[in-house]
Amino acid sequence: MRQIFSLLILICVITTAIKAQNSTAGAAPGAASAETQDRVEQWRGKTVMVFTPHPDDDVFGCGGVMAMLARNGNKIIVVIYTNDNKGSFDLEMTSERLARIRKVEQEAAMEVIGVPKENIIWLGYDDGELEYAEPKALCGQAAKLIRKYRPDAVFSIDPGEWHERWHKSDHRMAAFNTADAIRAAEFHLYYPEHLLLDGLKPYKVPLMMFYYAADEANYWVDITDVVDLKIKAVGKHVSQFEPSINKYRPDWDPNDFEKLVEYLKGRATKKDGKYVEAFRRATGFNPQ
Amino acid sequence: MRQIFSLLILICVITTAIKAQNSTAGAAPGAASAETQDRVEQWRGKTVMVFTPHPDDDVFGCGGVMAMLARNGNKIIVVIYTNDNKGSFDLEMTSERLARIRKVEQEAAMEVIGVPKENIIWLGYDDGELEYAEPKALCGQAAKLIRKYRPDAVFSIDPGEWHERWHKSDHRMAAFNTADAIRAAEFHLYYPEHLLLDGLKPYKVPLMMFYYAADEANYWVDITDVVDLKIKAVGKHVSQFEPSINKYRPDWDPNDFEKLVEYLKGRATKKDGKYVEAFRRATGFNPQ
Amino acid sequence: MRQIFSLLILICVITTAIKAQNSTAGAAPGAASAETQDRVEQWRGKTVMVFTPHPDDDVFGCGGVMAMLARNGNKIIVVIYTNDNKGSFDLEMTSERLARIRKVEQEAAMEVIGVPKENIIWLGYDDGELEYAEPKALCGQAAKLIRKYRPDAVFSIDPGEWHERWHKSDHRMAAFNTADAIRAAEFHLYYPEHLLLDGLKPYKVPLMMFYYAADEANYWVDITDVVDLKIKAVGKHVSQFEPSINKYRPDWDPNDFEKLVEYLKGRATKKDGKYVEAFRRATGFNPQ
Amino acid sequence: MRQIFSLLILICVITTAIKAQNSTAGAAPGAASAETQDRVEQWRGKTVMVFTPHPDDDVFGCGGVMAMLARNGNKIIVVIYTNDNKGSFDLEMTSERLARIRKVEQEAAMEVIGVPKENIIWLGYDDGELEYAEPKALCGQAAKLIRKYRPDAVFSIDPGEWHERWHKSDHRMAAFNTADAIRAAEFHLYYPEHLLLDGLKPYKVPLMMFYYAADEANYWVDITDVVDLKIKAVGKHVSQFEPSINKYRPDWDPNDFEKLVEYLKGRATKKDGKYVEAFRRATGFNPQ
Amino acid sequence: MRQIFSLLILICVITTAIKAQNSTAGAAPGAASAETQDRVEQWRGKTVMVFTPHPDDDVFGCGGVMAMLARNGNKIIVVIYTNDNKGSFDLEMTSERLARIRKVEQEAAMEVIGVPKENIIWLGYDDGELEYAEPKALCGQAAKLIRKYRPDAVFSIDPGEWHERWHKSDHRMAAFNTADAIRAAEFHLYYPEHLLLDGLKPYKVPLMMFYYAADEANYWVDITDVVDLKIKAVGKHVSQFEPSINKYRPDWDPNDFEKLVEYLKGRATKKDGKYVEAFRRATGFNPQ
Amino acid sequence: MRQIFSLLILICVITTAIKAQNSTAGAAPGAASAETQDRVEQWRGKTVMVFTPHPDDDVFGCGGVMAMLARNGNKIIVVIYTNDNKGSFDLEMTSERLARIRKVEQEAAMEVIGVPKENIIWLGYDDGELEYAEPKALCGQAAKLIRKYRPDAVFSIDPGEWHERWHKSDHRMAAFNTADAIRAAEFHLYYPEHLLLDGLKPYKVPLMMFYYAADEANYWVDITDVVDLKIKAVGKHVSQFEPSINKYRPDWDPNDFEKLVEYLKGRATKKDGKYVEAFRRATGFNPQ
Repeated sequence: MRQIFSLLILICVITTAIKAQNSTAGAAPGAASAETQDRVEQWRGKTVMVFTPHPDDDVFGCGGVMAMLARNGNKIIVVIYTNDNKGSFDLEMTSERLARIRKVEQEAAMEVIGVPKENIIWLGYDDGELEYAEPKALCGQAAKLIRKYRPDAVFSIDPGEWHERWHKSDHRMAAFNTADAIRAAEFHLYYPEHLLLDGLKPYKVPLMMFYYAADEANYWVDITDVVDLKIKAVGKHVSQFEPSINKYRPDWDPNDFEKLVEYLKGRATKKDGKYVEAFRRATGFNPQ
Repeated sequence: MRQIFSLLILICVITTAIKAQNSTAGAAPGAASAETQDRVEQWRGKTVMVFTPHPDDDVFGCGGVMAMLARNGNKIIVVIYTNDNKGSFDLEMTSERLARIRKVEQEAAMEVIGVPKENIIWLGYDDGELEYAEPKALCGQAAKLIRKYRPDAVFSIDPGEWHERWHKSDHRMAAFNTADAIRAAEFHLYYPEHLLLDGLKPYKVPLMMFYYAADEANYWVDITDVVDLKIKAVGKHVSQFEPSINKYRPDWDPNDFEKLVEYLKGRATKKDGKYVEAFRRATGFNPQ
Repeated sequence: MRQIFSLLILICVITTAIKAQNSTAGAAPGAASAETQDRVEQWRGKTVMVFTPHPDDDVFGCGGVMAMLARNGNKIIVVIYTNDNKGSFDLEMTSERLARIRKVEQEAAMEVIGVPKENIIWLGYDDGELEYAEPKALCGQAAKLIRKYRPDAVFSIDPGEWHERWHKSDHRMAAFNTADAIRAAEFHLYYPEHLLLDGLKPYKVPLMMFYYAADEANYWVDITDVVDLKIKAVGKHVSQFEPSINKYRPDWDPNDFEKLVEYLKGRATKKDGKYVEAFRRATGFNPQ
Repeated sequence: MRQIFSLLILICVITTAIKAQNSTAGAAPGAASAETQDRVEQWRGKTVMVFTPHPDDDVFGCGGVMAMLARNGNKIIVVIYTNDNKGSFDLEMTSERLARIRKVEQEAAMEVIGVPKENIIWLGYDDGELEYAEPKALCGQAAKLIRKYRPDAVFSIDPGEWHERWHKSDHRMAAFNTADAIRAAEFHLYYPEHLLLDGLKPYKVPLMMFYYAADEANYWVDITDVVDLKIKAVGKHVSQFEPSINKYRPDWDPNDFEKLVEYLKGRATKKDGKYVEAFRRATGFNPQ
Repeated sequence: MRQIFSLLILICVITTAIKAQNSTAGAAPGAASAETQDRVEQWRGKTVMVFTPHPDDDVFGCGGVMAMLARNGNKIIVVIYTNDNKGSFDLEMTSERLARIRKVEQEAAMEVIGVPKENIIWLGYDDGELEYAEPKALCGQAAKLIRKYRPDAVFSIDPGEWHERWHKSDHRMAAFNTADAIRAAEFHLYYPEHLLLDGLKPYKVPLMMFYYAADEANYWVDITDVVDLKIKAVGKHVSQFEPSINKYRPDWDPNDFEKLVEYLKGRATKKDGKYVEAFRRATGFNPQ
Repeated sequence: MRQIFSLLILICVITTAIKAQNSTAGAAPGAASAETQDRVEQWRGKTVMVFTPHPDDDVFGCGGVMAMLARNGNKIIVVIYTNDNKGSFDLEMTSERLARIRKVEQEAAMEVIGVPKENIIWLGYDDGELEYAEPKALCGQAAKLIRKYRPDAVFSIDPGEWHERWHKSDHRMAAFNTADAIRAAEFHLYYPEHLLLDGLKPYKVPLMMFYYAADEANYWVDITDVVDLKIKAVGKHVSQFEPSINKYRPDWDPNDFEKLVEYLKGRATKKDGKYVEAFRRATGFNPQ
């Protein structure tokens, strides 16, 4: 019955398709329709932005694809909404210190993935408080970065995966905000100060890849070649796991780590015998 | 398994049913239970309110039914949350000017549909910013209008259609707000100043028709007779389409318009060989 | 396809499992993993918190289980977000008076269920306005109570039941807020003033039971033995029903009440020939 | 030393003076510079707006001048921010009822002064809660009314009288908001929807008279002729005085009222043996 | 010229005077008019509330009078808005730790003054962020405490001392909020949930003493007898002074402390050769 | 009587004085107490920040001193809160265009004063809406810039000049916000993300110079040598004056400009026969 909705969708599609060819908003070079059919495995020389609520959802959600893209010479910009400074059971831990720890861990994880430190952008919100941010300013921050980096694709947490959406307010807010920012970035009349003050022109993101997209996934990537890298990157987030989450220590006991790796590898998602990451792929704001 | 929920529902139904008969809240004359089974095609002399996030969602979502209702002598009040003043790729366009353009286009579209200019109520919020409005005041604005016009039915965007809900924040907010306002309008203890200052009594909306209701649709209307009117009305929103969306021009090149009409007609939603519009019909706040 | 999501889930599970055994956050004594498999019918001497948006959703949603738990010697704390002071069609009614009436009715209903008056905690928000509360403070109120009472289980309205979520803003907000508070209560870095000023340590809720969980229910409880108590408790909410909702009267005409009981009983949810209440049971913030 | 500030002031004065003559903002006919020197006693056929935080501050602050203006054939529009629905010690009183009482009393007081009921505009905010209103919307409400009525003068509570400002938050907020609205009303780029949707052109208020202007007063009006009317109008606010404020009664015991009148008259402000009202008069936003 | 304002004032005075005698709001026993003329030195058995933005403004502002009142058998309740957890130059300091330190220091200072730990009420707001608190809830917190303790006098920071007001946002906000709360506490229609849920009746504070009242002071108290206690109490706030503010240490080097004492004593405010504390004394919300 | 306040002040002075010498907050090199006695005329090689609500208040308030400082080899950073995009009577003007015009004018004015374009920092808030900005984020923006540029002095609009404060809400807000930001910048526990994410250490501003400081001025600077430059810079703000404010034109008719210059020069503030600018000079948050 979804097709009854199609009148509206098609109208949008017409508009969008025409726009993609000659919009003054400046689509990325090479964003031709053939290109958007390209498999992620083939990308070379592209710019990709990954928005993540916390420093680790990026790796959990699409660390394999990120490693593959980095290896293939694409530029990855990671935008992290919160500093993840509250999730510790260690009563000696403080928010200020945990933020510092989480920053170092994320940098180490990204080094494993192949993203240099200077490509990590921290928005610095407190863990668990993204939903309290002033929404217009928050959306503007993300839109400004999109207009600056003009990515060929944006990876973001799926607002459509409702289990995540309602369980973790930062996930909910990060998902909505990135989607809203992608829309705002297209039109110069949203946040006109970006153009006025910083010379940033509007930009239409040609492709969205939503991770954590369980039931709605429509695109799978074989990450078998990079699954070890992904797990290694996960392991850099020491403070997120037992025993460090209970009593902070900056490193792993080799035994503990071995158990973690074994466990993760044994349980990693597979499809047709391959390790995969799942996405909901979209090129516009409508079901496809 | 939905029926396990039925205890609560039934309790509400009892209450509501009894209320419908003798509530002091003042149900519309003729809102008898038989009547609520009436098909929309039979309506005559009714008052219908259509709430729309932007000036065009009304036409896309239920323009056919609106044309049919107007032709049949019903009174239609259209309430438009935002002025849609940001969605242009034309770098020469300004928000102030776009708002003026969108207003004229909507008036032209409504003229086609059969709704006079004085029945269009603009709330005037900026495009893309409805979610930033103060929620209690926003709900009060909608509730006040409901209490004033006392409609036999309200048409509104479906808050249950999640794809729309998370993709477009104005849609999300308009959907929730109208639903909340319908509830508030029933009880005099919400916004008691409406009664005190304006003499507006509480009012219970007997019927809700939610448009953009893809998967949840439970009611279809054959709009074959008015599909041309609907498409003509859509065409009045020139600034929303290529080429005007990229470089503003107030009118269509006949060739461009012909292509649009052909395209829309060819792809319009059909059911059993007829052009239809789909709705989720509800008489109370519970699944049915 | 939900299992593709499992990598993340399993990582959380590892962490959580280990934490459950030796977390400094102080799991409740007896919260062993075997125990969490226990059926609710077997609980004795436990502490259970029930969060409800209005004074009556608790009874509608889980009044049967509450009565069973009370009878079996468990301690029940009921936390009520709003005072339900607006839902009357009686034009003579005022908000202040309705709040007083609703309080007395809830106390009477709880007496039937077996919850003493001193175990009812009112947060006192206005009916229909929970969504306007300052969200960080609201979450802190709930988290503080969780840290104080350290319940073996929390019963709350299901944020996953979207029909309720979008129809009634208090339900939506109460559902999200309780879930957020459960998460915040675990970590001392959320609301550190609870520890500093009131000596309240962080606490991890081992079990969540979400009521109003139609399509997502995964746990049913036979309430046949207590269904009469439940209905009697429902009946204490006189002002919520016809005729009192239209013209307030504090008591039932015996005939009206008999009809209500009969009606409720005849339509109460059944599964395999038994009266049941349905829940979505969860021990962590992930699908199970 | 105040004159060191004069560079800025003079620049403003130049601009303003020139504007006053040929501004497209549409100064009221007759707003010539000679006219602004006119004494209030000479006004005939003018439109005057009085903004008041509560229904009674208008009478206390400038009821004498209002009576004089009404008698002389000027049109007075009274805009009342709050409904004053909380200031009673009577434990039986409710907010809803007090709002109704205060409305009737204000209408009676205005009848004494000579202002017809239809010239009273209630904004309807709760007593003591004006400061919680969404400020941009509140300013827009006042600006819209100014643009609609295009008054020759605005009377408002003095934001410069700090004792009032900090003691009573509604006074503080009403004073600031009216001043902000006067500024916004001048420029079409503030609240452009007033022009777009309601055809209301910008308007520059040529004269401001601030009441409750103790130390800063620079203009006094002899109200000896109307002091009886003023006191009679004050007396219509029965619920504000003992004994009605403690135990509501709608009327005065003649003895109580006589004592009140005698007391008020005996203590009314005098200057040079005359009853007066004091104002801070201003024609622009600078000290003069 | 201040007397031109007197009409309004007198009206209030009449009302207030009559209310003071027989208000149902429940004036404190002994709040007779003779009593309000009493000198603070004579108070015995009274309840006094001191509201302070930070843990130390109470001692700086009125520590001498507090010591005198405690010695004379009065009960002192200290309400502290913020936890003062940011004012350290020590880069090793964290907010969580500083809050703990400030709490211990304040308890030690109060012990010197004669206020037991259980009479200190912390509202727990972050230092420098009081102005960001939701204002209606903040006012309700203070009003609730006033209704609970029903003080014979409230000491609070002077909102009229503008130098402080604009320099330090917590001072500004604490001053306004306490004044607003005193007003709200009088009327049962503000925060009616206090009566409904907690049985707290409205209460009119008969006397306000504003400290930090430089130019507006109208009341001085000779604190010569207790100046040593005051200085000793000030000295308990070790973390506020050099060297501890730069590099935290919990105690004084005896030399440093001696210098501090000497310095403070040498420069303490004097009037007519006596050490004094200055106040703006008020019994209502009008200049006197 | 101001000296009764001195106990508190002196305590602060002790602390501050000691801090000034060896604070880890990093006072600017050369911020010795002798230096703070320096006259502005003697400054060489210093860094000065000027905060201004609109692009022109800087020139009106301290354009002469700015020109003098620039000429003497000091570095000036100008931070502009709003883009001043609403103050036009030209009905053809739009907000977007006016923002562009104001930016060009301010750059031209600064070129006259001697401040290069790259030293102008625009925060980009809409004219008249600074008060609606999220206050914690706004304060953080200003504090971050202070920590980055580490100025020897900050020039800002005087929050103590109440006439301006209540008349123009942007002025009010800019004044408070800069003062709050100066305080926040001192302590690393305010906005710790500045250090964490951007490596910006806390910084104590040693000197504040408040312009628009009429009655409270305590410091005057002879600007006779640069008064022509100041007036020339004022003249660059063409759109602020008649006739351009009524019907935009980008330049002056020579006759109009000549009249303006003459007028300004003839009325410029003088003291002892010299053109002067007046300031309230402060080195800490207390009267001096």
